[in-house]
Amino acid sequence: MSAGPGTPTRQPVGAGSLVAAVEQRLAKFFVTRREILEPLGPVVADTARALEAFVLRGGKRTRPAFAWTGWLGAGKSAEDPQADAVLTACAALELVQAAALIHDDIIDSSRTRRGFPTVHVDYETRHRDGRWAGDPAHYGASIAILIGDLALAWADDMTRGAGLDAGQERRFAPVWSAMRTEVLSGQILDIHGEAGGDESVEAALLINRFKTAAYTIERPLHLGAVLADADDELIAAYREFGTDIGIAFQLRDDLLGVFGDPAVTGKPSGDDLREGKRTVLIAEALSRADVTAPAAAALLRSSLGTDVTPEQVAELRGILTDLGAVDAVEARITDLTDRALTALDASTATADAKRQLRAMALAATARAY
Amino acid sequence: MSAGPGTPTRQPVGAGSLVAAVEQRLAKFFVTRREILEPLGPVVADTARALEAFVLRGGKRTRPAFAWTGWLGAGKSAEDPQADAVLTACAALELVQAAALIHDDIIDSSRTRRGFPTVHVDYETRHRDGRWAGDPAHYGASIAILIGDLALAWADDMTRGAGLDAGQERRFAPVWSAMRTEVLSGQILDIHGEAGGDESVEAALLINRFKTAAYTIERPLHLGAVLADADDELIAAYREFGTDIGIAFQLRDDLLGVFGDPAVTGKPSGDDLREGKRTVLIAEALSRADVTAPAAAALLRSSLGTDVTPEQVAELRGILTDLGAVDAVEARITDLTDRALTALDASTATADAKRQLRAMALAATARAY
Repeated sequence: MSAGPGTPTRQPVGAGSLVAAVEQRLAKFFVTRREILEPLGPVVADTARALEAFVLRGGKRTRPAFAWTGWLGAGKSAEDPQADAVLTACAALELVQAAALIHDDIIDSSRTRRGFPTVHVDYETRHRDGRWAGDPAHYGASIAILIGDLALAWADDMTRGAGLDAGQERRFAPVWSAMRTEVLSGQILDIHGEAGGDESVEAALLINRFKTAAYTIERPLHLGAVLADADDELIAAYREFGTDIGIAFQLRDDLLGVFGDPAVTGKPSGDDLREGKRTVLIAEALSRADVTAPAAAALLRSSLGTDVTPEQVAELRGILTDLGAVDAVEARITDLTDRALTALDASTATADAKRQLRAMALAATARAY
Repeated sequence: MSAGPGTPTRQPVGAGSLVAAVEQRLAKFFVTRREILEPLGPVVADTARALEAFVLRGGKRTRPAFAWTGWLGAGKSAEDPQADAVLTACAALELVQAAALIHDDIIDSSRTRRGFPTVHVDYETRHRDGRWAGDPAHYGASIAILIGDLALAWADDMTRGAGLDAGQERRFAPVWSAMRTEVLSGQILDIHGEAGGDESVEAALLINRFKTAAYTIERPLHLGAVLADADDELIAAYREFGTDIGIAFQLRDDLLGVFGDPAVTGKPSGDDLREGKRTVLIAEALSRADVTAPAAAALLRSSLGTDVTPEQVAELRGILTDLGAVDAVEARITDLTDRALTALDASTATADAKRQLRAMALAATARAY
């Protein structure tokens, strides 16, 4: 057992040492792929390198951090004989995330991620530069679909090869299954909602619940807990905490998507308005405007998903605030965070884990604009 | 143990009873998904139904049949206590196949499959009929990417929930991993080859090897063998047989794609020429024409991937035949089949399995046009 994974009990999870340990496990996994891919030749080796670069390029490793903290919080330690296997299984969450991001970027027609071209754009450019046959954009999307598929399959391979014992495997499988099904289903709901125009707060909350909360916090904690063979009571507390904090995190993200400082969010100001995202914030605003301010409702509906100017963004922000939608979302965030922290405090998680999870919860939901 | 899975020892595998048993396991698996999906609401339930309909709509269940025969051939029987678990794991291959087909249809821009609209076209139509927001084709592709992802994740879930014992799980994992990596890599090679225009026979054979042979025959047999804890000798024989027959099968398919009777193949005559597929047949023809018939080479290159008329198809067929490419491919099929059957005969597989596999090999590679 390397020193890395032990550190989270002594410093905030998600900080350098766990991130490094997760990335080391991922890098090690990619080495095992090279052997399998060798007979397939240089083209495939090159796509595997593209995926490896994508996975190792960065990210906060949020999901492994929650899973690992969930495991520690059930009374396990980095010196446990199974700690290395558990950390590897936690790190595999980053391959699910890579698959989700690569496919999401095709779906959202995103051109860049983390300051680099998205995978489909990367391959579109290679096609164009090479003056190959066919349509560059279609080629890029095709290769990116397959690279995302590889990431999804490899996530599984990584957990199966992690060295979990038979009991861990048995407890892990249904939670792992639920997590992937939920995030994919949440994405389906999201796309369907945007296309079909379901404007209700309930629809937006359902997407938050599964696309973000279950996938990012609830299920990673749950996975950590079952790997530690935690009792039902702790699992229930983790899941309650994870669901509430996960939804609160998404609500904060929704506010940042409209009001965030581009220097902090890394996205153009008001980007969510331009994308026409069906967030709880927008749903809340529309349901209020429909009752009290039909003109504002009409303006919101006609502006969302269009290429609004900075002046229009400012006007829409004013409308969202005046309608009370911003306050309503802030109140939801406060309520959810309070409820989550109450569940956490009342749980049997270790004192260290409670401190960690509280810090992670506050970091994920704090006002930052 | 139901009566179904026992039958393959008494009648050709791939025939009604095994197909029915595989489909029954798949249907049972989809019932377990409904419970997980219930909290996600009707939109997701509907996409799960679309995937279930796609999976259960038909197909020859070739991969489960080879896997199951591989298991029986290692001396196991349908009365084995693990037979039910093994059959379920074999059936899960159909979910990998569903994922591959759904994503392939996006990549190939195919509009129909098995007489039904492809998944992305189905959702494109729903979008158009519903007069929803955004681009119908992009919506259709997006939903189909996610449904394919679900199929890929569920294939894993189905194997993890099959009831394999710890030894079976351990032996199964690396072969399952290799199989998925190989088919996805083979698809990447295929797309890259078409775009980049690698015209060599070697490039076409490499794609055949991994996209078809490993995925369709070699690895399914290998999976069946490891589930039966077969010895290395039988595994090697299966793999040799599977690779050779798999490549031969693809070569036959390539010939059918140009010379096949539309009434038999279900595809328009000469469809592979229109799609510009880089098959061994074409590679063989080009390498010959470059030496002996430059005009024929130029015509082939300028025609491939264009919307050729029936008259042009007839002309191209004549060129392929006159160049000796058809005979060369036929000779390869004969050699590969002979070599495969020799390996099979010399193996320690049961007499029943040898009979089955011989019949399956001949059915897959026989001249049928």
